[in-house]
Amino acid sequence: MSLIEDLQWRHAVKAYDPSKKVSREDIDKIIEAARLAPTSSGLQPFRLIVVEDQQIKNRLSEGALNPDCMRDCSHVLIFAAWDRYTAERIDRMYDLTTDERGLPRGRFASYTDKLKSIYLDQPAEVNFAHTARQTYIALGLALAQAAELRIDTTPAEGFDNAVIDSVLELEKHSLKSVSLMYVGYADQSTDWLASMKKVRVSTQDFVMEF
Amino acid sequence: MSLIEDLQWRHAVKAYDPSKKVSREDIDKIIEAARLAPTSSGLQPFRLIVVEDQQIKNRLSEGALNPDCMRDCSHVLIFAAWDRYTAERIDRMYDLTTDERGLPRGRFASYTDKLKSIYLDQPAEVNFAHTARQTYIALGLALAQAAELRIDTTPAEGFDNAVIDSVLELEKHSLKSVSLMYVGYADQSTDWLASMKKVRVSTQDFVMEF
Repeated sequence: MSLIEDLQWRHAVKAYDPSKKVSREDIDKIIEAARLAPTSSGLQPFRLIVVEDQQIKNRLSEGALNPDCMRDCSHVLIFAAWDRYTAERIDRMYDLTTDERGLPRGRFASYTDKLKSIYLDQPAEVNFAHTARQTYIALGLALAQAAELRIDTTPAEGFDNAVIDSVLELEKHSLKSVSLMYVGYADQSTDWLASMKKVRVSTQDFVMEF
Repeated sequence: MSLIEDLQWRHAVKAYDPSKKVSREDIDKIIEAARLAPTSSGLQPFRLIVVEDQQIKNRLSEGALNPDCMRDCSHVLIFAAWDRYTAERIDRMYDLTTDERGLPRGRFASYTDKLKSIYLDQPAEVNFAHTARQTYIALGLALAQAAELRIDTTPAEGFDNAVIDSVLELEKHSLKSVSLMYVGYADQSTDWLASMKKVRVSTQDFVMEF
């Protein structure tokens, strides 16, 4: 199947069957698609939290707009971005890059110096606006990977970030939650969106050409 | 090929062969992947600008961090988000949704009323922070679609938005540029990143599990 067929197949599932679990192998593929996502300057300024534990899901559901999905899905993925850029975080990523490529550390120093001169003087909220954006690339690819496997998902914003961040102790890791993704298998009898046509603006309205 | 193989294949190309053009059929597939991207509440708060015209690309290159890529690639895709939410924009999208689904207009009024109560009181910059985030889902899917077709791409931020917005007259459409994507075929002799290993943080470092 092609990516376009996968995207046509998927929809934001509104109810999950709590008796159906996604296999570890498939969860690993969804994680891998998110991990391979490109990010600005290759900094990967976010982490992925994968929750299968029912008690943690129950606690997270107190901050969810759709608590039934949180409780009933197989796994919840939380995309959590760096609260800000730091020299150490930038250096750690570029040291990994040079090490993996067999290059001397500091090989990209002129570039990392430029990144630091841009980011480190910005307020934390300006940094976070940028790190948060990057997570959406990975969210899109994780949704696509699940669709390729015909696994149901729901991307979600609008939850209570304070609850999510607190339950997952994200502050300890200098992370802040951005979006969620429920993963599992739909309850066909109660997923009301399943029977409705997918609607998108027409290509003519979506695109401007020069 | 799988999505993961496509993502392993791609990299951010650093030089394009100006003699090689991407076919219309393939550009249409990349557009379609972006159009099918899920967005918050299904509002699709952005548009895609597709530039093939060489003179426009030359003018856009004055605002680009990598002007050679802008001039030499086959097509440039610009993701431009709504400058803010409006009642009219929300209603237009939900009228399309109900029309396409054969439902009476206003069927989702309680939901759109809630959206309006959240968004319309926010300053434009808070709205735009949200609409801009949504474009990254589509950016990721467009990059994945190009990779499936073995077409080279470069995602780019860090350009001069004022130049891009002015050349494309985005303000007229109440849009603001967010990111760019160069599309084409690499110049193998000058694309210095092609030979370098793709580096990502390890799965162990990327994921926290509960």
